[in-house]
Amino acid sequence: MTIFSKIINGEIPCYKIAEDDRFLAFLDVFPLTRGHVLVIPKAEVDKFYDLDTDTLGGWIQFAQPIAKAIEKAFPCKRVGISVIGLEVPHAHMHLLPLNTMDDINFTRPKLQLSPEEFSAIREKIVACL
Amino acid sequence: MTIFSKIINGEIPCYKIAEDDRFLAFLDVFPLTRGHVLVIPKAEVDKFYDLDTDTLGGWIQFAQPIAKAIEKAFPCKRVGISVIGLEVPHAHMHLLPLNTMDDINFTRPKLQLSPEEFSAIREKIVACL
Repeated sequence: MTIFSKIINGEIPCYKIAEDDRFLAFLDVFPLTRGHVLVIPKAEVDKFYDLDTDTLGGWIQFAQPIAKAIEKAFPCKRVGISVIGLEVPHAHMHLLPLNTMDDINFTRPKLQLSPEEFSAIREKIVACL
Repeated sequence: MTIFSKIINGEIPCYKIAEDDRFLAFLDVFPLTRGHVLVIPKAEVDKFYDLDTDTLGGWIQFAQPIAKAIEKAFPCKRVGISVIGLEVPHAHMHLLPLNTMDDINFTRPKLQLSPEEFSAIREKIVACL
């Protein structure tokens, strides 16, 4: 079972942004920027292109209002998407506010934030949803 | 009119991978890796989250078989997605074969390929579609 499935079933806590029967969005605890969110299908499928077509389309549709909320909560040039998946074999979409190309460069060090900071970021985004 | 709209209407040529009434896929001529493809909606909308919901879902569904074809044509750990858009104000999805995080790092220099190399890459991907 992937760490994301453990988050879905509540074994591991998360800073939840949104959830429905098929998808879950929560803060990435290794963020590149403040406002960095992960959006995952609840189905434990590794590569995004192996999701069934309907879930695949629903995934980005579920992410749409979250991207808008991130942009409102963390003013930026735009919100970007990255789907990489070299670390956790459970499809996940990164949504993050961008001002420069380097904001979405996954080779650079991640931010280290306190639980209070994560909580405040979560509340800020949820308030914009 | 964006450069992508000029590609859509044929004013600027491209190495075309796939097309339907709503979407177009073609090689990125400033590729990070061999097999780097752009997938765009024909509607000239800047930010992906401003696409209508149906087009947004259709966009990633259109990209799905292309991602599989890239993976077959250019064996890799997986194919990744990046949507950034700091340069061209017309929503575009990068699909590219990944072996390391650095393969999808847009701050690094792009490959310089000849027209013959682009043509060969295009044919390789199309043959896997």
